[in-house]
Amino acid sequence: MIALFVDKIRFFDTTLRDGEQTPGVSLKPDQKVEIASMLSDLGVATVEAGSAAASDGERTALRMIADAGLSAEVATFVRALPLDIDHAADNGADCVHLVVPVSDLHISAKLRKRREDVMEMALTAVEYAKERGLVVELSGEDASRADPAYLADLFREGVERGADRLCYCDTVGILTPERVAEAVPPLLFAPLSIHCHDDLGMALTNTLAALKAGASSAHVTVNGLGERAGNTPLEEMVMALETLYGVDTGVRTEGLYALSAAVSKMTGVPLPVNKAIVGEMAFTHESGIHAHGVLRNASTYEPIRPEQVGRTRRILLGKHSGSASVRAALQELGYACTDAQVGEIVSRVKIIGDEGRRVTDADLMAVADAVMEIVRHPVITLKQVTVISGSNVIPTASVTLTVKDEEVTCAATGNGPVDAAVEALRRAVSDVAAIRLEDYRVDAITGGTDALVDVSVCLSREGRMITSHGARTDIIMGSVEAMVSGMNRLLEEKR
Amino acid sequence: MIALFVDKIRFFDTTLRDGEQTPGVSLKPDQKVEIASMLSDLGVATVEAGSAAASDGERTALRMIADAGLSAEVATFVRALPLDIDHAADNGADCVHLVVPVSDLHISAKLRKRREDVMEMALTAVEYAKERGLVVELSGEDASRADPAYLADLFREGVERGADRLCYCDTVGILTPERVAEAVPPLLFAPLSIHCHDDLGMALTNTLAALKAGASSAHVTVNGLGERAGNTPLEEMVMALETLYGVDTGVRTEGLYALSAAVSKMTGVPLPVNKAIVGEMAFTHESGIHAHGVLRNASTYEPIRPEQVGRTRRILLGKHSGSASVRAALQELGYACTDAQVGEIVSRVKIIGDEGRRVTDADLMAVADAVMEIVRHPVITLKQVTVISGSNVIPTASVTLTVKDEEVTCAATGNGPVDAAVEALRRAVSDVAAIRLEDYRVDAITGGTDALVDVSVCLSREGRMITSHGARTDIIMGSVEAMVSGMNRLLEEKR
Repeated sequence: MIALFVDKIRFFDTTLRDGEQTPGVSLKPDQKVEIASMLSDLGVATVEAGSAAASDGERTALRMIADAGLSAEVATFVRALPLDIDHAADNGADCVHLVVPVSDLHISAKLRKRREDVMEMALTAVEYAKERGLVVELSGEDASRADPAYLADLFREGVERGADRLCYCDTVGILTPERVAEAVPPLLFAPLSIHCHDDLGMALTNTLAALKAGASSAHVTVNGLGERAGNTPLEEMVMALETLYGVDTGVRTEGLYALSAAVSKMTGVPLPVNKAIVGEMAFTHESGIHAHGVLRNASTYEPIRPEQVGRTRRILLGKHSGSASVRAALQELGYACTDAQVGEIVSRVKIIGDEGRRVTDADLMAVADAVMEIVRHPVITLKQVTVISGSNVIPTASVTLTVKDEEVTCAATGNGPVDAAVEALRRAVSDVAAIRLEDYRVDAITGGTDALVDVSVCLSREGRMITSHGARTDIIMGSVEAMVSGMNRLLEEKR
Repeated sequence: MIALFVDKIRFFDTTLRDGEQTPGVSLKPDQKVEIASMLSDLGVATVEAGSAAASDGERTALRMIADAGLSAEVATFVRALPLDIDHAADNGADCVHLVVPVSDLHISAKLRKRREDVMEMALTAVEYAKERGLVVELSGEDASRADPAYLADLFREGVERGADRLCYCDTVGILTPERVAEAVPPLLFAPLSIHCHDDLGMALTNTLAALKAGASSAHVTVNGLGERAGNTPLEEMVMALETLYGVDTGVRTEGLYALSAAVSKMTGVPLPVNKAIVGEMAFTHESGIHAHGVLRNASTYEPIRPEQVGRTRRILLGKHSGSASVRAALQELGYACTDAQVGEIVSRVKIIGDEGRRVTDADLMAVADAVMEIVRHPVITLKQVTVISGSNVIPTASVTLTVKDEEVTCAATGNGPVDAAVEALRRAVSDVAAIRLEDYRVDAITGGTDALVDVSVCLSREGRMITSHGARTDIIMGSVEAMVSGMNRLLEEKR
């Protein structure tokens, strides 16, 4: 492989600054510390902790991160203002990401200043930050729409006044790899970072092009979080460099998924289902041809092993499933089927899939029982469930089940009506078996209060796990349906 | 701008085939017809309707799409098997996407065949498909890991036997733009499509590189749906070509968002929050500097106008908000504040943001009232709400409110307990005002039945709209909290 890149690529992670600027996202200081530690442990060179001038909470977070003894450099975003720099220095930052608007549009329309004013402010700020003992990364905001001569002047003077590193920002995501290849080389008189936005889906492309053109540092965010369409995703950048270009990034890749999941949970921004590396489906296979290939040799449909990024592989069943994956799932559930039975089960699974439904373990077992003519008397039958909740009422549920032909009625309270109903169900069977609710999830409900609510549960009994689901317009009844269906399967005699 | 591309780029959309192979996704035939029509109206050249050999439902969908009189060419995925081709022809396809594994890994590990067997099957299939009157796009699966000489032979012979177009598939997403630039030119003896996967985030990059190298057709899916990390997204490809390279794609771009939203709804795969072009945040601004810039001149932080893709701009408030966006929001809500008041409101909004919360209209109004010392007697106060639901119970709610100092009790039934509670609230105030629930959404609930449930509502009264939210472990009480908070604001005397 030809050496396309500089010897050592740095990652400047801005999840806690640009990432947190995703509208609606707000992290508390202790959450920021947790993410900063994970980033540092992963091997990121710089963690941008936030924007010290923005609020008291931001300054508290900066101070806590600076005091956490991370191996990564701790940076903060500042404008070319002495007050911002004081906030940075006073709260323990190692480095300022000193951002200066450089396009005429930003200088005039946003700041209502002139080029020479901005130049003056920037250079004064660089000197002041150096006086205060800070590493300075001087950043040209909207550089991709700036006059290249003005930008080069600003950067050159900035370096003369003490700036340690430079950063070229494609603030609205309009670069192309062709333009990057032209823009970067004249700016390599100091170490250069590239900061890209994904408005047109080009952030990774352009970051890669800049690194090829001689930039030594990539600004990234976990999960590509950030303003609007977000920034270059850390996990994609690292894995593309490692896998496709043989670059040793120094990043502990097997920690990538845990970090992505933690950031998703704390920010409340779900991981996109199809997202590269970290999406739910990135290592999940359904289609017959694909699952078949993967079961024989994983590399047929996987460019990297899921373990490389801290994940595991999963085969789902649906209308695209072929006999190989259905057979594998049946074996796992304890069924021994003939080829003819597998063929029939596959075709019935496809029918469920054609109806637009996911196929859970409980669904597959119902199909297998029918095909194999296994008659099962359901261990439990729901006779009734009643739930009451309200402002002056502790959420309370009663259920009546027949469990092995005996009628059992139980009641329970909970944090809410669903919690109460689930607890009542668990109690009603507790004499027979200890069933744990391992996972409970409800797809986002949109559109109205009469929308279908899709509930998925994963139940376990003595280490055996099973998935099932329910779908109703009533979230309580959907949850009960999923629970009863899964519990019935776990209570059956083992095959 | 230099002409980097062929004169006319075709889009071959495979949302209904590769997109639908996203594990867990399953579209019904009538949904497929609706999406196919939208794609055709948008200006896509080819719609791949599915995989005719996969199931009866797939064949029904193909037949319905073929009969819908679309202007787009209707294709279906087939293997190099006469039966597959018969299914295609018998159900009215115009074109077969004839997919043949070409890497030794796929030929041996998946098919357990030899190169010459695959060559023979492929060429026989091409001839048979031409006999059956079909346009043939001959596709090399896993081409990026195949012996280039074998691939070129197969493609050349395929064209001699009648293949109309060729397709190079990067099945596991391991191409780089450098490798694309080498691989494509030797294959241009017939019109060439490029089919990329996004496992390492490179699908758009590589598709663009192939088009630059002379390919004339891009395989894409709406929202980048597809196996694992998905395929090249239609909306990003189109907008990048139009905006960055000045290519006239012939696509009616203002229909892109409606299509993305429809596909998201029908597949159940949410639109990623930060997704380029179509994500919820793509044209939403929160941070002070950004929102300030956008309010003065939208192009400071937007590379394209939201209207170009059928969307609108939104300013959200949070801890990054500055005075410009807070002032704009206050004006919209009917407040006239002094600069000092705006300053105080901004700092209180930041405090809410620092706590990790979103700031809705109702939150901002509460802050503004406090700062401006406006004492408002709440128009409605919740005295009690009680909800009962269950298997043998019609979901029923009662509420007691004081509305303008008079106590009102109302009851209602609904599709579920939330629906009943919301309806009871609406009725309780119906003598005073007609309030409509415009939007109701609940963030996905994950982790357990005791997780905090975040409910957002948008209410309207005579055209005036307001957002509010509630967060409780009990979905019913969270919904009631959001409703009462929003209703109170809509019932106030206008300022």
